[in-house]
Amino acid sequence: MTLRPLRPSDHATVITVIDDWWGGRQMAGMLPRLFFEHFTDTCFAAERDGELAGFLVGFLSQSRPAEAYIHFVGVHPGARGAGLGRRLYQEFFEVVRAHGRTVVRAVTAPVNTGSVAFHRRMGFEVEPGPAGRGGAPVAAGYDGPGQDRVRFTRYLR
Amino acid sequence: MTLRPLRPSDHATVITVIDDWWGGRQMAGMLPRLFFEHFTDTCFAAERDGELAGFLVGFLSQSRPAEAYIHFVGVHPGARGAGLGRRLYQEFFEVVRAHGRTVVRAVTAPVNTGSVAFHRRMGFEVEPGPAGRGGAPVAAGYDGPGQDRVRFTRYLR
Repeated sequence: MTLRPLRPSDHATVITVIDDWWGGRQMAGMLPRLFFEHFTDTCFAAERDGELAGFLVGFLSQSRPAEAYIHFVGVHPGARGAGLGRRLYQEFFEVVRAHGRTVVRAVTAPVNTGSVAFHRRMGFEVEPGPAGRGGAPVAAGYDGPGQDRVRFTRYLR
Repeated sequence: MTLRPLRPSDHATVITVIDDWWGGRQMAGMLPRLFFEHFTDTCFAAERDGELAGFLVGFLSQSRPAEAYIHFVGVHPGARGAGLGRRLYQEFFEVVRAHGRTVVRAVTAPVNTGSVAFHRRMGFEVEPGPAGRGGAPVAAGYDGPGQDRVRFTRYLR
C-alpha cells in the first residue's frame, strides 16, 4: 500500500465509488472537485496494485492558524481492518504538524458509531453535548436542520 | 448595506434560505458548516437592516499559492439588481490580492446563464471547451457524472 497526494484526476474515480463504499449512503455531494484541486498538499490517496484503496480529504484551517480539519475519509470495503484509516490519519497528523498545527478537528453523523469508535481510538476527544442516536454526545443541527454531528478534537503534541 | 466577515452562526440562517434564494434548486448541500468555521477571513455576509441580504463563500487556494477560489454566492431575491454581487466579488478580490493572489477561479452550472453573464461582466474569462446548454463552453463531468461546469478565471492586476 502506498500513499501519495490526491490529484484532480482522482475526483472522477472517488465520485464513482464513494456511495458504494459508504454502503449506499449518498456521500458524493460532500466531495466537490475543489478539494481535489486546491488542497492537494493535505489530501492523500492510498493505492494497492494501482487501484484506489482509500483516501483522506483534509485541510489547514485558513482562519484558525492552530487548527486543521479532516473533512472526509473513505476506505474500500475490501481494504478494511488492515489499519489503512489509521495510516491516513497519521499521515495527515504528521503533515499538519509540520505546518505548525496543534489541533485537528473532524465531525461525523451520530448514526456512524464505527466512525465515533475509530476517532476515539485515534486519540480524539468528543465535544460535550446531549447524547444522540448511537449514544455519543451530539451538536444538534450542527450542519443544518436535522443534521446532528458528533464533534471530535485531537491535540497534537 | 454593510459587509462583514461570515460567522459560524450564519450557517443556520444561510442553510434555511438558500434553496429559496436559488429558486428551489437544492443548494444547501454545497455549504457544509466547515466553510463558516475555517474560512471566515475570505467569506463575507451583507446585511441590510440587520437581515442577511447576501453572502460570498471563497478561500485562498491552499496548494496553489497564486490562486483563490469563489465557491458560492447568494443574494436575496429582493436585493438583486443593486450591485451587491459585484460588491461581494470586489471585496473578495481586494482581500485575496492583499494575500498575494493573482488568479481567482470559479465554476458554475451551464444552465445558469445569468451567472455566466455576471462573471463575464466581472472580468472573468471562460475556459475553452465544447458549447454546453446555455451556449457557454463547458468542462463535461467536471464535478462528477452529468455535472458539467463552466470554468471562470479572473486575473488580478
